[in-house]
Amino acid sequence: MQFQPLSKAAGIREVDAPQSLVMQFGPDCPLKMDAGASLNHLTIAYQTYGELNAARSNAVLICHTLTSDQHVANTHPITGKPGWWHTMVGPGRPIDTTRYFVIASNVVGGCMGTTGPASLNPATGRPYGLDLPLVTIRDLVRAQAMLIDRLGIGQLFCVAGGSMGGMQVLQWVASYPERVFAAMPIATSARHSAENIAFHAVGRRAIMADPDWRQGRYLEAGVTPTKGLSVARMAAHITYLSKEALQVKFGRKLQNRSAPAFSFDAEFQIENYLDHQGTSFVDRFDANSYLYLTRACDYFDLPADYGGSLAAAFRGAKTRFCVVSFTSDWLYPTEASRAIARALNAGGAPVSFVEIETDGGHDAFLLDTPEFIATSRGFLDAAARARGIALAKFGPD
Amino acid sequence: MQFQPLSKAAGIREVDAPQSLVMQFGPDCPLKMDAGASLNHLTIAYQTYGELNAARSNAVLICHTLTSDQHVANTHPITGKPGWWHTMVGPGRPIDTTRYFVIASNVVGGCMGTTGPASLNPATGRPYGLDLPLVTIRDLVRAQAMLIDRLGIGQLFCVAGGSMGGMQVLQWVASYPERVFAAMPIATSARHSAENIAFHAVGRRAIMADPDWRQGRYLEAGVTPTKGLSVARMAAHITYLSKEALQVKFGRKLQNRSAPAFSFDAEFQIENYLDHQGTSFVDRFDANSYLYLTRACDYFDLPADYGGSLAAAFRGAKTRFCVVSFTSDWLYPTEASRAIARALNAGGAPVSFVEIETDGGHDAFLLDTPEFIATSRGFLDAAARARGIALAKFGPD
Repeated sequence: MQFQPLSKAAGIREVDAPQSLVMQFGPDCPLKMDAGASLNHLTIAYQTYGELNAARSNAVLICHTLTSDQHVANTHPITGKPGWWHTMVGPGRPIDTTRYFVIASNVVGGCMGTTGPASLNPATGRPYGLDLPLVTIRDLVRAQAMLIDRLGIGQLFCVAGGSMGGMQVLQWVASYPERVFAAMPIATSARHSAENIAFHAVGRRAIMADPDWRQGRYLEAGVTPTKGLSVARMAAHITYLSKEALQVKFGRKLQNRSAPAFSFDAEFQIENYLDHQGTSFVDRFDANSYLYLTRACDYFDLPADYGGSLAAAFRGAKTRFCVVSFTSDWLYPTEASRAIARALNAGGAPVSFVEIETDGGHDAFLLDTPEFIATSRGFLDAAARARGIALAKFGPD
Repeated sequence: MQFQPLSKAAGIREVDAPQSLVMQFGPDCPLKMDAGASLNHLTIAYQTYGELNAARSNAVLICHTLTSDQHVANTHPITGKPGWWHTMVGPGRPIDTTRYFVIASNVVGGCMGTTGPASLNPATGRPYGLDLPLVTIRDLVRAQAMLIDRLGIGQLFCVAGGSMGGMQVLQWVASYPERVFAAMPIATSARHSAENIAFHAVGRRAIMADPDWRQGRYLEAGVTPTKGLSVARMAAHITYLSKEALQVKFGRKLQNRSAPAFSFDAEFQIENYLDHQGTSFVDRFDANSYLYLTRACDYFDLPADYGGSLAAAFRGAKTRFCVVSFTSDWLYPTEASRAIARALNAGGAPVSFVEIETDGGHDAFLLDTPEFIATSRGFLDAAARARGIALAKFGPD
């Protein structure tokens, strides 16, 4: 397939040739999407850690956030940074890779090797752009289930994830209750709020306002809407942090100066930090993927799919749940997690709900937050005993 | 002075020929600015309501917010909407125009007739653009004091304002304690927080990312960075409303449809609302003014100007204060107002501090919030009695 060179930005090499395992699905195995279309050529890029045991009972699926990916516990191929959940996943970590077989796949609509808007559309030989049907959280989970089937795993020991990952966790149990022994939806919500949609709308407008976006056809033009994507990331990033942490970390400190310079440069450290978040993001993320995945979150409304009752989504599920929220998370505040816990209780599912005191904001689940790590370890160890999964090769249970 | 036609957008006619009273200051009366420069040709556009009494004791100065202006209580010349504080200012309102002489001036750096970046620079014959020195809240207040001097008013009965207007109120008392009998800083802060700066930084980046911004020289090119300014406004607007109010008003309601269309159009009502906020804003506001005035807020740090002590800023002030905050305001939360009240107490100033329960968010002071209106009326009536100002012509005191 001949095609003009793609931009280096937005990790576009990973779209074509991911440094990951890859599973291909042909027209015999289409992904049926909520938007009505079918994806007849689906590629899923994924990582695994640890070994599947003989009983095939120790598989843990990690669902990633809006802008993270399958590189949970290994060095990221673009940024060179540690995997985004290395605090939780690895030898001796709560999701212990010497005990569990850990799977993490890039979501449909993403840009790290799974089919997304930057992928080549086999029907046209050019990137999908906006020709890719819009995706929903249910579509993401349906694709993951196809991967899990191919891997020959009937029931997952655990599905875990935070934020958009947590939405997928909830959707997994709603869609495939028999296939999830334990679930950890973290810092998430069963439906996107008006404020959540509002922030996403701003990000999308920022991208679409960039003339280099070109109605989504920027890759063929050899450009990328880096300025718009950068603004989108800056706005979103504020919502990931708590007001308190911003104040403690940055306050009103100036960047490399002792007095204001009276300019529109990044004079304050917080400005410099956000600029950095924005500009580094565009090197690893595709602008159209940002549109698709924010939209998937916006559409997420699990109660609506079950006649307005979240409890109905979980009725009869035997999955044991650990629902976690963080006190300073104002993006998906504790109230959203409490609603999940209440619905699970009403549905009869075994659930423990923990609100963790921290000023780490929404991103606390990505940090080495001791109480969160301890909670996760306790929940998973107990669930593993109940499931009869052997101890870790090293270290105490 | 010959000059190519300016864009109709951004209320640019008002910059040149405001439908307001205008006060001109020449080189004999320069505005000395914190950035070190002097403005030798200052124009201030202002509105007045009511009549100054013989004792010249009944003048109330209203300080406006980031994006409002001098049109407090009259139909706005661009939008045709009622004045932005008609709930508070007018006959029978707490700031009763049959009792008080109300003055409201457009701030320096604004775009409604007072000298700002869209004004013609007499030295070059073209708009200032970024050649206008950056402004601070203290500069804004210094210019207002020049206007008040010209109007022959020694002491203002009251200075009132919310948000950026509240910062000006605080600065008035700090700079000219003898000249302010009563002060109402509302929904404001004595220093901009890291989160406050962060949101402003996003807005500025959105504007500066728009190729039509042209390094601030868009007016001469006959273009305006409407897309960037619109994104800036959308992001800021979210911070003006409470999560609760957004949920109640918009929730997840779709715009003119019963099911998702699976598109990137404004499918949700909240998206449509934000789009409208963005696109209507660009018709009345100048993008460079947005840069200047957000920056002025970011620089605002009253404690820092007084050796780190907010109490020192108010030491010896006899001004009676009414400090007001709103429970659902997360932009300038109650804690920021409490810090002001504490400093006033420490400084010995008479202060009443009222936190008003509302889901109206930051913008609650612009709404017809009954407890806020009643609080303001009570405070002002008592202060007017103390100052010996005659009763309103109509209605009870």
